[in-house]
This record gives sequence, structure tokens and C-alpha cells, in this order.
Amino acid sequence: MPAHAKAPKVAFVVGLGSMGMGMALSLKNAGLDVIGIDISTEAASRFAESGGRVASSVKDAAKEADIVVSVVVNAAQTESVLFGASGIAEFMRPDSVFISSATMDPAAARKLAQQVEARGVHYLDAPISGGAVRAANGQLTIMASGSEAAFNAARPALDAMAAKVYELGDSAGAGAAFKMINQLLAGVHIAAACEAISLAAKLGLDLDKVYEVITASAGNSWMFENRIPHVLAGDYAPLSAIDIFVKDLGIIQDMARTERYPVPVSAAALQMYLAASGAGMGRDDDASLARLYAQLSGVALPEKTK
Amino acid sequence: MPAHAKAPKVAFVVGLGSMGMGMALSLKNAGLDVIGIDISTEAASRFAESGGRVASSVKDAAKEADIVVSVVVNAAQTESVLFGASGIAEFMRPDSVFISSATMDPAAARKLAQQVEARGVHYLDAPISGGAVRAANGQLTIMASGSEAAFNAARPALDAMAAKVYELGDSAGAGAAFKMINQLLAGVHIAAACEAISLAAKLGLDLDKVYEVITASAGNSWMFENRIPHVLAGDYAPLSAIDIFVKDLGIIQDMARTERYPVPVSAAALQMYLAASGAGMGRDDDASLARLYAQLSGVALPEKTK
Repeated sequence: MPAHAKAPKVAFVVGLGSMGMGMALSLKNAGLDVIGIDISTEAASRFAESGGRVASSVKDAAKEADIVVSVVVNAAQTESVLFGASGIAEFMRPDSVFISSATMDPAAARKLAQQVEARGVHYLDAPISGGAVRAANGQLTIMASGSEAAFNAARPALDAMAAKVYELGDSAGAGAAFKMINQLLAGVHIAAACEAISLAAKLGLDLDKVYEVITASAGNSWMFENRIPHVLAGDYAPLSAIDIFVKDLGIIQDMARTERYPVPVSAAALQMYLAASGAGMGRDDDASLARLYAQLSGVALPEKTK
Repeated sequence: MPAHAKAPKVAFVVGLGSMGMGMALSLKNAGLDVIGIDISTEAASRFAESGGRVASSVKDAAKEADIVVSVVVNAAQTESVLFGASGIAEFMRPDSVFISSATMDPAAARKLAQQVEARGVHYLDAPISGGAVRAANGQLTIMASGSEAAFNAARPALDAMAAKVYELGDSAGAGAAFKMINQLLAGVHIAAACEAISLAAKLGLDLDKVYEVITASAGNSWMFENRIPHVLAGDYAPLSAIDIFVKDLGIIQDMARTERYPVPVSAAALQMYLAASGAGMGRDDDASLARLYAQLSGVALPEKTK
């Protein structure tokens, strides 16, 4: 390293699931010094096998980090990462930044930001979109809001993880709100796609032809185009699980109730995700809603061929 | 005309609304001899001003036509065109073809086809998609099913009116079913788009930014992309009206009930179209659902600027 070069930024990634693992590797590939941790020792081992540095002590990793990237699923887990029994907030350095990628109610994001900022640590509200493949390639979309200082401190990580960073406001909450609007639409569109494709099966239509016609018509959606191939292949291995939308449309219901805003369409969709989860498909791919509709109406969908 | 040239095919277009007028002009531009009629004398006059030939007698026009193109809104109107007080079925020539573009229950399409074919006239079940501009440019999408003879007889008109003709089966009903699947999705997607954009307004988000982010994200749909600009401009002049989806999602409900198939998501969407229609917006643009959500929740949406 030339004498004038700065030491690489230290990024501490909390949560090494399919998204977190990809994000950690993207950070590493971009030259950051990455420490990872997960409650699953198996995930941590896989990170170590990929050449990653696994935190031996959460406290030490938090002290060392310029940037913490929290890749957990909801507000409760984020709060636990920060303020739980092994919470890192008290160990983070002043002017370091906590990047929160969990999907949550904007009010929860604002509250966490306030608590973190009270300790002199920056908070970036930065939900992600894009899936595991794009996470691994540093090609995520990030819907971010926070102070200018938070953006500046987070920049090396954002550049490494994302193809596109939307800067949506100067305080926490806006990023979360944009993500929730996206999840409302995504959740309804998957449910509508599954309601439609299984009805088409009930009507005896050629489902491959339905896919061809709809994806070229006004009834198309990003989710129809992306998820219906799982149904046509009879493959419900989870790329994104039913229970993700149980969670996200649940947050929508809670937000909407607080706001005194009616959401009848997403409420109906949530009931179908709940039914699918209750029927044992919670950890299966979210296109499993098609199987639920098929079961309810006694129709056969394509089955997986080896 | 050279001695070997055949006389142009005569096409009789029944219904000169925004779609029918465009289709009639496309037929005329393609060199067919086009006769038009509408229950509105104003529409008929506009067709005459465009150089069209207006039928003086429905009976004579039906006798003269090689191809009848019926551009009315539903099964009841189609039945009236064929078998009502001035019904044309009894006057149509054997081996001429009746092209039905109305959106309807597949069972209704099958019944009408049976009655028409019993008279030696071909029937093409041919719902359309694409809107008035594409109708006028001969660029519609047509979802068609019918006998080979029906397709052959209809071909000159299909070629003139459509950029894409999906051939979906050898009997009436399949075209109607594909169109209904599309309408289920389209109707739900507009409702979801409006539920989402007015919630975004309630949350105080920058709506132009919401449009930018969502159209680049997994929450996008053809309808979100197409209709939300009406909301952003505060312009609810009807390109496609609320009452169209009151009709089409109503057909979905009826079909699904007959099939013993649950459609909770489109049922919820239908309730919102019914509410919008009941609140006086039935003839306004279908993006008016956003105004309904805004009214229900006390939030302001953009207003039209001159």
C-alpha cells in the first residue's frame, strides 16, 4: 500500500442470509475490510469459507467498524441488533454509520434513527430491492433516506452494494415508506398473478400461452412476469417466501390502520398469504399462492419434472 | 381496376365509439369497403365526415357485408346486435363472418357462436386490447378463437385492425377467457396502483419520485406505469372508464362463482370500482380510484393545472 493510501473502510455485516451474504461479498470485492456475523453458525462458516472474516466478538467488531450494514428482516430484529442483550449501539464509534436494510414501518425507522443518532452515530434508512443474485453482484436497488452525513459515511458501502441508490429524503422514514409502497404493490401483484393463473387452469386454458399473451398485454406486471414461470415449472423452491409477504403486507395493514387509510385490495391479498402460510407453505416460494388457489378449487397445476 | 382484381371486401362495423371508430377507419385505410352504424347519430355523423359510408338500412348493410365487426361493450349488446329487434343475424350471408370484440363470459361467447353458426355464418370470438389510439392505427392486439373458416373469412379485417392476433383455439370461448384473465389482472393492478399512490400521498411522499422509483422496481405493472401519470396530472378525463371495470370484474365474479373458484383479490378491487361508480365517477377515467381513496382518507392529490 502506498504511504498516502488510506486503510480500507471496515464494514461489519450483521446477518448473512441470502441477501446479507451477497452484500458482504460485494463489499469485500469492492476492497472493503469486511467482518460478518450471523446467529446461524452455519451461515458464518460459509462466509469464512468464502474468505470472509467472521466476528469473534460483536463488541470488538462494532468498535472497529466504520460502517455497520444490518441485513435482518424486520424492525424487532433491527432493534435487537442495536439494543438487545448483545446490542452494538453502545460500542459503535461516533461518526460511524448504521445502514439498516430491513423492511419496516417508517415510524419504527424514525424511532431507531433517533435512538442511534442520540449516541452520535449516523443512521441510514436503506431498504433494499433486487434479490439474492443482484445482492451477490453488487447490483441492488437501495431506497435510502438520512442526513447528508449518514449518506457520506455510508457511500463506500452503497457504491459497493448497489447499482442504483435512490436518495429519498434527509431523515429516516422516507426510505422505509417507499419500500412499503413497493411491497404493497408487489404483494398484491403476486396474489393477482396467482389468482389469475389458477383461474386460467380452472378454465382449461393453455398456461404457457396465457403467460405469452399476458406478458405482452396491459395485464402484465413485473411480478407476473417473474413469478409465473415458477408455477409453469411447478417449482416452489423459495426464492422469496410466502412469509415475507405475511410480514410486509402485515406492516402495510398496521401502517394503514394508524393512518386511518383503507387498503381493501392489499388486505384481501394478505388473507391469501396467511392462508398459504397456515396451510404449511410459509417457507415456500411466494408463487405458492397459485397452489393454494388450485387446492381450494380442485384444479391441477403443472408439476415439477426432473 | 384491372379485370382480374377482386372487388374489395365489404366490412360492416357495428358500434362507432372510440374503439369502433378507429377500427372502422383502419379497415377503410386498408382498402376495405366499410359501412358503419351506431345508435348515436352523432357518432355516425362523425364517421360520415371522415369519409365513411353510414348504413341507411341495417338489413341492407348486413346483406352486403363479407365481414361484420361488432364493437359493443358486452354480451347483452352483442346478442341485441345479432338477434334483437333490428338484429342482423337473419340477413347475414352464408360464409360471411361475425367478429365479436366485446369482453364477455366465455360461456356467453360459446352460446352466441352456436346460434350464429347454426345459420351458416362464421363466428370469431375476438376480444381486443390496446385502446383508442392503437385502434385508429390498426395496431390492436386481438385475442381470437374460432374455426379455421372463421379465421380465414376474418383475415382481411384482422390484418387491417391488429398488430398482433393471438390464435387461441378452434372454437369460441377461448378468446373470451384469455381476455377475462387479462381484465382480472388489469383491474386489480389499477386498484393496487391507486391504493398505493394515495397511501403514498397520505404518508407525505413526493409522488413524482414514487412514480420514478416504482416504475424501476419489482412493484411495477403495465397499469401502474400507464395510469399513475393521470393521477400525477390530476387529469381524470376518461381514456378508459371506471364502469368498464365494474362490468369486467363483475363478469369475473360471475364466472368464478359458476366455476366454484374463489377470487378474493379481484373481489376487493371490484368493491372499490363500485364505490367509485356509486360516488359519481363511473364515467371518469379508471385512475379515479385514486381520488376515491384520497376522499376516503382526507388526503389531497395533485390537481389539474391548465
